[in-house]
This record gives sequence, C-alpha cells and structure tokens, in this order.
Amino acid sequence: MLIDQQLVEKAEKLMPSLQTNEVEIQNIIEVIADDAAFQGWRIKQSMTPQEWKERSYGKNDSFIVDFGDHYVGYVKLAIKSVGSPPDAPLKLKLTFGEMPCEIAEPFESYEGWLSSSWLQEELLFVDVLPAEIRLPRRYCFRYIKVEVLDTSVKYKVAFDDIHCDAVTSGDILQVAALPASLPQDIVEMDRIAIKTLQDCMQTVFEDGPKRDRRLWIGDLRLQAQANYYTFQNYDLVKRCLYLFGGMRLEDGTVGACVFEKPYAHVDDTKLYDYALFFVSVLHDYYEATKDMDVLLELWPIAMEQLEIGVKRLDDRGIVADDSTWWCFTDWHDELNKQASAQAVLIYCLKHGRELASILGKQEHYKYITEKIQLTTNASMQYLWDENEGFFVSGENGQVSWASQIWMALAEVLPSELNALLLERLLEESPSVGMTTPYMYHHLIEALFLVGHNEQAITQMQAYWGGMMQDGADTFWELYNPNDKKQSPYGSNLINSYCHAWSCTPTYFIRKYLV
Amino acid sequence: MLIDQQLVEKAEKLMPSLQTNEVEIQNIIEVIADDAAFQGWRIKQSMTPQEWKERSYGKNDSFIVDFGDHYVGYVKLAIKSVGSPPDAPLKLKLTFGEMPCEIAEPFESYEGWLSSSWLQEELLFVDVLPAEIRLPRRYCFRYIKVEVLDTSVKYKVAFDDIHCDAVTSGDILQVAALPASLPQDIVEMDRIAIKTLQDCMQTVFEDGPKRDRRLWIGDLRLQAQANYYTFQNYDLVKRCLYLFGGMRLEDGTVGACVFEKPYAHVDDTKLYDYALFFVSVLHDYYEATKDMDVLLELWPIAMEQLEIGVKRLDDRGIVADDSTWWCFTDWHDELNKQASAQAVLIYCLKHGRELASILGKQEHYKYITEKIQLTTNASMQYLWDENEGFFVSGENGQVSWASQIWMALAEVLPSELNALLLERLLEESPSVGMTTPYMYHHLIEALFLVGHNEQAITQMQAYWGGMMQDGADTFWELYNPNDKKQSPYGSNLINSYCHAWSCTPTYFIRKYLV
Repeated sequence: MLIDQQLVEKAEKLMPSLQTNEVEIQNIIEVIADDAAFQGWRIKQSMTPQEWKERSYGKNDSFIVDFGDHYVGYVKLAIKSVGSPPDAPLKLKLTFGEMPCEIAEPFESYEGWLSSSWLQEELLFVDVLPAEIRLPRRYCFRYIKVEVLDTSVKYKVAFDDIHCDAVTSGDILQVAALPASLPQDIVEMDRIAIKTLQDCMQTVFEDGPKRDRRLWIGDLRLQAQANYYTFQNYDLVKRCLYLFGGMRLEDGTVGACVFEKPYAHVDDTKLYDYALFFVSVLHDYYEATKDMDVLLELWPIAMEQLEIGVKRLDDRGIVADDSTWWCFTDWHDELNKQASAQAVLIYCLKHGRELASILGKQEHYKYITEKIQLTTNASMQYLWDENEGFFVSGENGQVSWASQIWMALAEVLPSELNALLLERLLEESPSVGMTTPYMYHHLIEALFLVGHNEQAITQMQAYWGGMMQDGADTFWELYNPNDKKQSPYGSNLINSYCHAWSCTPTYFIRKYLV
Repeated sequence: MLIDQQLVEKAEKLMPSLQTNEVEIQNIIEVIADDAAFQGWRIKQSMTPQEWKERSYGKNDSFIVDFGDHYVGYVKLAIKSVGSPPDAPLKLKLTFGEMPCEIAEPFESYEGWLSSSWLQEELLFVDVLPAEIRLPRRYCFRYIKVEVLDTSVKYKVAFDDIHCDAVTSGDILQVAALPASLPQDIVEMDRIAIKTLQDCMQTVFEDGPKRDRRLWIGDLRLQAQANYYTFQNYDLVKRCLYLFGGMRLEDGTVGACVFEKPYAHVDDTKLYDYALFFVSVLHDYYEATKDMDVLLELWPIAMEQLEIGVKRLDDRGIVADDSTWWCFTDWHDELNKQASAQAVLIYCLKHGRELASILGKQEHYKYITEKIQLTTNASMQYLWDENEGFFVSGENGQVSWASQIWMALAEVLPSELNALLLERLLEESPSVGMTTPYMYHHLIEALFLVGHNEQAITQMQAYWGGMMQDGADTFWELYNPNDKKQSPYGSNLINSYCHAWSCTPTYFIRKYLV
C-alpha cells in the first residue's frame, strides 16, 4: 500500500461527531404473507406500544416492534421480570430488519454468497433482571423481532421500553425546503432520498449502513453530489477524499473502498472506473467549495489516476477488456464493461482537463486533451456501430444500456447525436439492461444532460416511484420492478434497503427541477 | 418479605473482593464417543496450543480448547484476520462445558425442565478485527468449543490467545497441607473437594457456579463446615448468615435461597428442612469462631425457626406430611420426607439447645428441651417399626435410606442402637435409596457419628472415588454409579458438575482422618 500519513491524519482530524436522535416504537406489528405486497410480505398493526408494555412474555413468546421509519443506530432495551424472582437467565433472540422479509424469512434459510454475518441478529442472555441493556453494535432497521427463547417456569418478562438512538452526520436543519409548487410525489421522493443519504452519512459516506458499511468511491461520487444540494457537509467529502488519496494500492491506483476500523485502511479491491472517479469527485468538490488548498494537494493523485487509466489503452486507443471484476459499471453478469470503461475514462479525462485548466497546469492540460482526442476518436472508430446506431462493447460487440449511457455522459457524440442516441436507446431497449439504481442514476443524468428533462423525470418517477409504491422508507441497493426479490448476492435478505447510490432523486430534483 | 435492613447492610459490607488468577489453555482437543467413558465421551489431544495459534479458521471450522481443570471466571479472546481486510463481521459460536457431554451433545437437543438459558453458549458478531474481547458474563467450564460460523470469502481468522480470569473468594494459601502419611487417593480426593468448594466460593457460597449460582442454605451448611477446615473464610459465612437472617418470608421463615443481584433479595421458595438449618449453621459458625456478637444478633431469628418448625407438629408430635415440595432432603421422586423432616427438626432443636445454653437463655432452653422430648418420643412411638428395625415415613410407612440416616444424625435412638440402625441399613439396603452427594454426605457423617469410621471411609471412597475414576475435576451435583446420565432435571447437560454439596470429602478427611 502507498500510505501518505499526512493525508490520513488530515482525514482523521475531519472525523465528524454524530448527531443522536432518540426514536420510540410506533407500533407492534405482524408480518403477513400477501402475494400482492412487495416480496410477498405486508405489515399489520397488532398492538399499540402501550398495550405491549402491559403484556408479559414467557418461553417461546415473541413480538415485532416497528419504529415507523428506517433508522441507523444503537438499541436500548429495558426489561423486567414478572412473577417469582428470576431463577435463571433470560434468553432472547433479536432479529433486525430494514424490510419485512428479514423479519418473516428465517435467516437459517440464507444461502447467498455474501457472509451470513451481515444478517442482523443477536442471541442475548440476561443474567440479572430488571436490566437496561444498550446493545454495543450498530444496527440498521425499521423492525425488530424479539423472541423470548426461555425464561423459567417461575417468571416471565415485560418490556418497559425499547428505543433507538439514531445516528447520522447529516444535519437535517441544513436542508432547504422545496418550493411549494412541486408536486407531492416529487416532494415525497425528495424526502425519502434525503433520508437515504442521511442514514448513509456516518463517519464517512457509507455505501449501505446495514451491509458493507464502508466508503466506496462509486457511491461517494453520487452521495457527494446529493450532499451539495442538501446537507452541505463539505468536510465529510473532504475527509473521504483524503482517505482515498492518503491510502492507495501499490501501483498508485486509488482503491475502490476504504475501511475505517480499527484504523483507516484501504481494501485490496481495484476497479478501473472507481479509481478514475477520484478525479470527478475532486472536481465536483472543487466546484461546490472552491477549496483550492485541497485541489492543489490532491491534484497529483488525481492526475496519476488518469495516467494509470490511460495505460490500459491498447494500440487502437481502446480500454483493454477483461473477464474479471476489473470495472464495476453495474451488477450485471452478462454486461461487457469495455465501452462503459472507455466512456468513464473519457468522462474523467474531461473532469481532469477542467481541473488542469483551473490550476494552470499546461503540460497536464495538453496531455489530457490529447488523450481525450485519442480515446474519443478510437471510440468512434472501433466501438461505434453506424448500422446499429449504438456503441458496442467487447469481442462480441455487445449492445447494452450501460455502454450507451456512459458514452452519452462522456459526450463522445456531438450534442444532437447524443440526444438521438438516448432516444434510440429508450425506443429499442437493448436486452442487456440496467440492474441497479446506480445505473438508473446515470441514465437520468444523461437524459438531463441532453435536455430531455421530461423523459428524465418520467424515468425517475417510474423507477424510484416504483420503490415508493412498494413501501420504501429509504431507497434500495437493488430494484428490479419485474423481479422484486432479485439480488446480486443470491438472497433478497442480504440486499441493502438503504443504499447510497440510490439517494440521487434529491440531487436531480434540486438541481434540475427547482 | 420481612426485611431487616441493618442486617442486609451488614451483609453487603462483608462483600468479599475476589481473587483473580489468569489461566491459559492447556490443550486443543477432540471429544470422542466411547462407550467405556463417563457418559459415553472421552477427550483426546488434537493439537498443542502453539500449533493452534498458527492455524487459521474459516467458515464452518471449529476447535475445542481445554483449560486442563475446572474454572469459574471471565474469558478473553484475541482474534485477528488472515487474508484480505475483513469485509464482513466474524460470526462465532461459543459453547462452554464443565464436562465433555456439553461440548459433544448439541444444546438444541435439550428438553429438560430447567431453563435452557443455563446452557452456556454465546453467539458473537465481531465487527472489527483484530479484536480483544472480554466476554461480560461469567462462565463455569473446563472446555470451550469455538465454531467459526462465518467470515467471508476474503478472510479467515486466527486466535492469538484465549484465556480465563478465574475468580474465587477462597484463598488457597489458607489451606493447610495434609500429613504425608495419608494415602494418595485421599490426598487427591481432598484436592478435588477443595477445588469444588473454591469454585463455589464467590461473593456468597454458591450452590453451583454453572447453574443456579445462588446461596441455598442447605448447601451453605456443608460448605461452611468444609470451609472451617480449609479456607477459613469466616466473613463469607457471616455474610451469608446475615443475608438469610436479614430477608425472611412473610411468616418469619428463613427462605431457602437468596439472590444477590441486582440487589440482595430472598426467593419465595420455602423448605422445611432448609429453614431449620439456619440454627445449625449458626451453631457451627459460633463453634468455629466464638463470635458472640453474631450469635446474640441472630439468635432470635434462629429461635423463631425452631418455633415455626414445631408448629408443623400434629397432635402426636409428628411433622405433618405433604405431597408438595415442602422439604428437600434429597432429589428423589418417591422419597417420603416425613421421617427425615422429623429428624431434621430434632437435629436442629439439639443445635438450638446448645446455643440457648451458651447464651444462658433458660426459657428457650426449657422450651427446646420439651420439644426434643416430645418429638423424640413421638418418633419412637409412631415412626419406629420394631419389627422392621427401621424408621418409617408417611401414610404408607415407607422405609428409606434418608429416614434412617437423618434419624441417626438426630440421635433419636440410644448410641448403640443408632450404630445398629446404620449397620442394618447398609446390610438390608432398602429400595428407596440416595440420589445426591448431599444425601451421601449425611450417610457418611452418620457413620462417623456412630464410630464406624472405616465404613464411612469405604463409602466415601466408593462414591467420590467413583467420580474421580469417571474423570471429575470437581465433584458433581448428581452421581449415580448405576446411571451416569441421571439428572433430576431431565438432561445430564444441565447438571452442575461443580456443586457445593459435593465438596465435603475435605471436611471428612480433615475432621476425622487427620
């Protein structure tokens, strides 16, 4: 690893103190199988919190509490015994769910390929009652299922309180109100998007506070953009830039993700597109803050990312393809990433050229301009299929949504043709589609870019509006309207239902609709 | 409850500070099915601790650590990751066992009637590695099975250390060495008995540090007797006397057991024999310490226990029988407790008479003497079966070991006949036998009382020696040489394998053999 201790220390000095908000239970619920509901589960109130407090629970009794919204935080329970003095420990199982599926479908059934340790559960033994217990781990949830696995024949338990100390580094007071003229569904979508972003804003911009819980640069890019229009926590972006800049992989590449604990360290995952995004995140940050110090400090690293990206070009000026997980683009097994990687390179070269210009770095400006020309021309010569009217990718000339969207964002075609490309894309709808909100974000951004604002809004309303209709409290990592249990990890239980890259409706609404 | 706050406060002021002793792993073992071994399980070394530290463990790997002896204490684990940076929590299951059965037989199979929450297990999620974890609960064990339920595809874990901070209020330095003349098996039996007592000596004399973990007066009586010959922690006995005296049941009866946390409180269990033992424990304490202050202070409560005990006598002067759990005597479903309860009453009246004499309480002395005569005569008239040569109990005139043993201890018969009673008992061996070491203790005490010292030693060597041959590190709550999985609770998994009432070989050895 290449460690720049000064940058890492600067990052650590920017560690935010989190806001805490005590949240009470709203309802005691049941989860009921219902084919018409999202993923086959709907919730129904079974008791008020007051009724629940008056009940006592013995061996094999259980209940589900509903906090009414999605939260990230620490849970406290106040438990007392009912009956004779407790003559054996209380054995409790807790199951936390962002969504009803996690409460209704047993974790034992999980066979996905991500670690089952992400499934949020606890087995607790309480030796002394009454007890006030603050669970030491952070959870991400709306629901908690509490199962009393055992007490003893001599006593039961009752719950005086369960609450959550919700935490975030996103201060809602910094978020401006939307104009009253906006339609209600847009206002609501903005609210949910902001809540999504807020729950992901901790001591870094996390990708998902339930699972992964770390800083990925692909998510950071979108979160930072949404943050500039909402919470305006510039220091948090700065901290994240320093973390990525301060800890790189052996060859100088910015890593794909960073862990914070027990001390800040970069993961060994390297992704072509993610490393290049260091340049665009830096550019976005500069535009939002005009913070020349950070730009001067991090520019050499950004420039190096462009040079490393360029190294992957073949003799023709095309990014070399690969069958491994070398470039993220989207969660899609069949997607060929070559054309989108080419486009991301051009996109980031253009961001880099802006920064070189701001900094007056003429040599860099010249180098970058040459590379933009080289890669743009090569794209038109080798990836553009005039007959199809689409960019193709890989050996087999795959036509995908991702390739067109990224080529549009890279503005490889002249402006009018760029708009036509997206029209054709929507009309012909190639079979290699989009999987994640991350990819949908880029479609919508591209539509706004070419001035097709109405279509952008329609797409956003269809996709994120679909999540809203399906009961989203926060926006999700994955959403396939045609397969609502889809997961890139083999189980919907492990999907993240509050995910950074899904927070951008607030960015679109506040940038293009206000 | 009848609370004497002054006595409770005196008890709390006598709270001992515990000694801590850091204990290391001795071996990594396997548990192997073996019909010839105790309960069908034997252990076998699989690795040295050094080899174990060099290994790494991934999903579904497990190992068993062996501390080489029985301990009560707190466990620390030092865990590190091996491979890529850990990108998911570590999910660990820990199972603690006093005996191999707890490690080998899955707790899910448990169907006993005591709470399954006593089975010592933990499910741990470790979010950050490396980690040094001190588990907050106290465990009682020799073995720990560690199952790595999940890591992730990117990393495994290795263990730098697992150790135990063993705790006790029994200071081994206070225990005198035995004379070199004693045979080796007796020396070893003494050592194991002392270890049993030591592991039960915490902030009170606990009955069993794995399960129950509280102060029962029946166990206290024997522990205190053993303590006077070994650790000589008189303050701990005093604390326990104050706890029982300071918190009684509504009618003035001393409760059967006391809980310490979250604040000292007496259980609602009332046992006829246990309440009376307050008198004999006080007498034993006085004889060991000559502490007149405590005697003066607690005598009124002791005297009241005798009066309450006498109230249960019917017109004939016989303790009224009952089909409930009104008197403990032994864990034996078919045992009728009437005769043994009668004998315990006489036994405790005699202890009380000694105390009344010491205190010069003439009225009390006179009252007690009358009751001794009444109950002794009634025993001979209504419970003694001249033809059988045994005491009978209950409506159906049951002849049991327990009735004879307690009548012998109460010295209802003249000295020579008392000895003959025990000889007859051993010879004829009535079918209603003994279940617990607690009952065996009283047999042996009775044999010493009548001067049959050799038979006492033979019995002790047969019974506790049997446990030693079966691999006891500490002596057990239950031991039936003919049914080694026997449990009063429906499962050998929940039996306590370090149990107060089983610690008395050291008392016999040091009182009668030295």
